[in-house]
Amino acid sequence: MNDRVGKPVSESQVVLTVHMELEHSNLAGNVHGGVIMRLADTAAGLSAARHCGGLAVTVSMDDMSFLKPVYLGDIVTVKAMVNEAWRTSMEVGVRVESENIRSGRHAHTSSAYLVFVALDDEGRPREVPAAIAETDEERQRQIEAKLRREARLARKEAILATRKTEGEA
Amino acid sequence: MNDRVGKPVSESQVVLTVHMELEHSNLAGNVHGGVIMRLADTAAGLSAARHCGGLAVTVSMDDMSFLKPVYLGDIVTVKAMVNEAWRTSMEVGVRVESENIRSGRHAHTSSAYLVFVALDDEGRPREVPAAIAETDEERQRQIEAKLRREARLARKEAILATRKTEGEA
Amino acid sequence: MNDRVGKPVSESQVVLTVHMELEHSNLAGNVHGGVIMRLADTAAGLSAARHCGGLAVTVSMDDMSFLKPVYLGDIVTVKAMVNEAWRTSMEVGVRVESENIRSGRHAHTSSAYLVFVALDDEGRPREVPAAIAETDEERQRQIEAKLRREARLARKEAILATRKTEGEA
Amino acid sequence: MNDRVGKPVSESQVVLTVHMELEHSNLAGNVHGGVIMRLADTAAGLSAARHCGGLAVTVSMDDMSFLKPVYLGDIVTVKAMVNEAWRTSMEVGVRVESENIRSGRHAHTSSAYLVFVALDDEGRPREVPAAIAETDEERQRQIEAKLRREARLARKEAILATRKTEGEA
Amino acid sequence: MNDRVGKPVSESQVVLTVHMELEHSNLAGNVHGGVIMRLADTAAGLSAARHCGGLAVTVSMDDMSFLKPVYLGDIVTVKAMVNEAWRTSMEVGVRVESENIRSGRHAHTSSAYLVFVALDDEGRPREVPAAIAETDEERQRQIEAKLRREARLARKEAILATRKTEGEA
Amino acid sequence: MNDRVGKPVSESQVVLTVHMELEHSNLAGNVHGGVIMRLADTAAGLSAARHCGGLAVTVSMDDMSFLKPVYLGDIVTVKAMVNEAWRTSMEVGVRVESENIRSGRHAHTSSAYLVFVALDDEGRPREVPAAIAETDEERQRQIEAKLRREARLARKEAILATRKTEGEA
Repeated sequence: MNDRVGKPVSESQVVLTVHMELEHSNLAGNVHGGVIMRLADTAAGLSAARHCGGLAVTVSMDDMSFLKPVYLGDIVTVKAMVNEAWRTSMEVGVRVESENIRSGRHAHTSSAYLVFVALDDEGRPREVPAAIAETDEERQRQIEAKLRREARLARKEAILATRKTEGEA
Repeated sequence: MNDRVGKPVSESQVVLTVHMELEHSNLAGNVHGGVIMRLADTAAGLSAARHCGGLAVTVSMDDMSFLKPVYLGDIVTVKAMVNEAWRTSMEVGVRVESENIRSGRHAHTSSAYLVFVALDDEGRPREVPAAIAETDEERQRQIEAKLRREARLARKEAILATRKTEGEA
Repeated sequence: MNDRVGKPVSESQVVLTVHMELEHSNLAGNVHGGVIMRLADTAAGLSAARHCGGLAVTVSMDDMSFLKPVYLGDIVTVKAMVNEAWRTSMEVGVRVESENIRSGRHAHTSSAYLVFVALDDEGRPREVPAAIAETDEERQRQIEAKLRREARLARKEAILATRKTEGEA
Repeated sequence: MNDRVGKPVSESQVVLTVHMELEHSNLAGNVHGGVIMRLADTAAGLSAARHCGGLAVTVSMDDMSFLKPVYLGDIVTVKAMVNEAWRTSMEVGVRVESENIRSGRHAHTSSAYLVFVALDDEGRPREVPAAIAETDEERQRQIEAKLRREARLARKEAILATRKTEGEA
Repeated sequence: MNDRVGKPVSESQVVLTVHMELEHSNLAGNVHGGVIMRLADTAAGLSAARHCGGLAVTVSMDDMSFLKPVYLGDIVTVKAMVNEAWRTSMEVGVRVESENIRSGRHAHTSSAYLVFVALDDEGRPREVPAAIAETDEERQRQIEAKLRREARLARKEAILATRKTEGEA
Repeated sequence: MNDRVGKPVSESQVVLTVHMELEHSNLAGNVHGGVIMRLADTAAGLSAARHCGGLAVTVSMDDMSFLKPVYLGDIVTVKAMVNEAWRTSMEVGVRVESENIRSGRHAHTSSAYLVFVALDDEGRPREVPAAIAETDEERQRQIEAKLRREARLARKEAILATRKTEGEA
């Protein structure tokens, strides 16, 4: 990562802002969770594309929380920014907020972390710029992205270990 | 969990099978990742409802991998089953497979783990039946669900710890 | 049909399973009949494609009954299988069932018979494999497919006869 | 049917005219057959509602032919009119035509016959006005509607007969 | 405009007729204004294409009034016709009416005037046929189209004048 | 307007930001003009609601220009703000911009002026706060809104005059 060209993470920011209408409704009359997932994936994908300057595909949605329901009529704001970049992959953080114009209610409704890999024109992974954190908040996000990555790997190993044990039993 | 009524996890199985048409396409001409996320959320929600016999809402998508692209024209099969249940929450595992009728190609395209909480009519968390694993495979899934839960908590603590350190700096 | 290669009808089976959400609703708050028609056409088309190993287009929907309404929230299962094949055409039978997870209600909601013709790359009709019935139920379906075909032809003749009479009057 | 109030069939005519856009496309790039089926069902339902002055639900699509593909960009005209009415049910005929503004091409692309039953506010079948044919063409349609009805009943009997034989075998 | 080939405006008429279903609803339970705008744009674009015999793109929606709400279940009729044509542009008038089959209610719900420019295959403006008004009503529409065009230009000048004054202040 | 409570126009600002995907496409492969109209109407309606603190319905789209095509894959930003308020009505200005992340292309693609009327719970027009312009730009917008309003009235009178003349002829 040392001699790669770097790019400030702030340049990768993408904001989508959408009015929740009837087409976004689930049968309970709130906004369908799948609608929020798709918006998060779209915003994160645009942010990854902005960082790597080309095509990037979703490898995993590492963690997505649903803190509060989103209501029809709300304006939903989805903010995405690259947290950290490795050789060919990037972690993008997404924050979803909702606002109701009539009542003035604001809420942090969802957070998500997605991993993307950059692809060249033949669909092979290609190198991405290093992610340069310039503020304390951005540096903290980088630290947490690394912890999530390590937790992912540790979890996979722990699960594989139980499978081996099971297999031997 | 001991004296709660139990329910075999196999009774919670839900299978959705959908033909991927133009409305599911992204701009690259494949199936939009958000479409697969929404299908996974829907199938998992139905499975959780089947286990708890009432309303259940998504708390988090803990981990969703995208192993291979899904193509237009594919038949997508989404299998969901409760892996483990705690007092008021359940982990549901989802497996997504795709099949192309003309070429005969089959692929395991995605896996996901979602956590749901059961709600009563006033929207408060309510107890759910214990999850009874009856086969070796179901028992292995239960072990892995516990490991994922522990990893979630450990990761949260690790991240909070760095935040405290940051705060003290 | 004698010296054509044959293929067991059971290999042509296609099952689609879809959760009925708000986008499938009519103004009365049930599932739109047109949604069920489209699902039946899609499943039947995939079944015909599986039998003939290529492109097949709908020639007619011969008969589609609507026995009971389908409700929002239901899981709809659409089963399609080739009943009989002639030189370049196939009759596909479709059975639609609905299930409500909360109430446990099951219902046979619709049946349909569609005729498809197989096309080659220039869009001309092309030969399809003979349909091999292997069970009593499959043989009974073949008999009924023939009766429907004869009834179609008889009805057309009867109608043409009244038109001729009308014309002569 | 004798002492029921009658209503001219011409008063039940409904015409829908829709521009075929990308949302109506199948994967082959033409208009999805299911889109045409849904338009036919909608137009026929409105025509039945016009005749009976209230709610009417689809009982069956008796016969729907697909004579030619409909292309994206075409203007599709769907004409529906009640052909004949029995005590609580009505047969509606639908004719689908397509037009391409640039090329001037016109085509008769589809015909369909649907049966509806009128319902009262409790969902029970209710009497409908007799259908008064005033022109030769309308009278011919009435004759053909009767033949189709008889063919439906004859076909059902023929099929039931083979099932009985099968059952006895 | 003198020696251009002319074409009667009546030949440019286009009528679209659509049943308003749940997918057209806004959150207040009426038809979304944006749905009517899109239908007006589509009908007007088809009318312009019919007049110029080729591709035409929207330059402006000059004025669109919303006189009355449109309700779900209504049949909406959108009539479009070229009012006047200049060298490479055309004004199309659109009238939107709604009808409710059950209640018999009819209403004139919207009017709109749109300007289109004809394009050749390289996307450059190209000449269109002169618009021949043959009836008193068509001639009146031509006069009003000219007045709207002059008002557009006068308004632009008045606004530019205030901007200049502002700039000098 | 003098003794009404006033509200700064800047408080009415609404920004929507949407990624243009396949569902927004017209048959030429660009973004459908009707999609942009609907977004403009939505953003303007939310801005009017923010100013008047309640329900507001579209009375007219006074002028909407389409300066450049919007392409699939673009991020479209729609900015709406109340320009001027009269007793029960408001003019909202909308500016549409597009951005392509890969090429870095930015464009001002559309402008629109819409008039809304505020309604009370019985659907009758109700008073709205006066619109307070605080910057030179906001004051210039107020001047132009007045000119557009006068031009609307003048144009209507001019057209009515020709109709009277026509009527007398």
